[in-house]
Amino acid sequence: MHSGAVAAHRVDVPESGRGAGPRPGGRDRAGAGVAACLDRGVTDEEALAELRRLRASIDNLDAALVHLLAERFRCTQEVGRLKARSGMPPADPAREAFQIERLRTLARDSGLDPTFAETFLNLVISEVIRNHEKIKQDGGSSA
Amino acid sequence: MHSGAVAAHRVDVPESGRGAGPRPGGRDRAGAGVAACLDRGVTDEEALAELRRLRASIDNLDAALVHLLAERFRCTQEVGRLKARSGMPPADPAREAFQIERLRTLARDSGLDPTFAETFLNLVISEVIRNHEKIKQDGGSSA
Repeated sequence: MHSGAVAAHRVDVPESGRGAGPRPGGRDRAGAGVAACLDRGVTDEEALAELRRLRASIDNLDAALVHLLAERFRCTQEVGRLKARSGMPPADPAREAFQIERLRTLARDSGLDPTFAETFLNLVISEVIRNHEKIKQDGGSSA
Repeated sequence: MHSGAVAAHRVDVPESGRGAGPRPGGRDRAGAGVAACLDRGVTDEEALAELRRLRASIDNLDAALVHLLAERFRCTQEVGRLKARSGMPPADPAREAFQIERLRTLARDSGLDPTFAETFLNLVISEVIRNHEKIKQDGGSSA
């Protein structure tokens, strides 16, 4: 998606200050990236320090997002099993419409693009319904 | 995406127990949905109570997700302005590859489908790069 021209200016930042969690790729590759960037005069140390600080926050937020998404899918798995046992259909358009409108409002209130929030929720709902249908096919016993 | 057949079995659940936040659609519509469901014998009160409990958790998690995403985009807006000022390119394939691998590992550890985690992150990164490019075009001063 993003062209090779970008690679020439690559700025990799060491992961110090990051929260707990795996660090694929490791520190060596990141450190080398910073050095290459400084050699080329693409930016200065102050800018890199700021970038490092912001990326540490982003990585912490991403870890939190992944864990919240995992918990959300645990809940919807339970919903899926409940629906399969009770004969309720996997999809629920009225509930989905409610959720989308609620999230758009929450997004507006918190400074997130409401359209992005809706796209995000649609992605999640599609995955949930796919899981619900699988549980239904499996007779309500799927994990 | 989901057929009209679903509507006949619609289960709307009252929003009691939900966390703070707007509630588009309101309680009346939801209450009517439950009554219709019970009338049709689609499920029983116990199943509906369980569905209500799970949906309250899902709604709380969604509110948390929206607020974390809002905070994440606040951070990436800062990254965008920093990159525009410092002449760094909007996209950074090495950083993206690192993030994707890290999130896939976090997803596996927390029981989230790694493929879904990657799809989610790609959605977020696409939006971030779009914002970075806009900031760059605006000369680094865009909000």
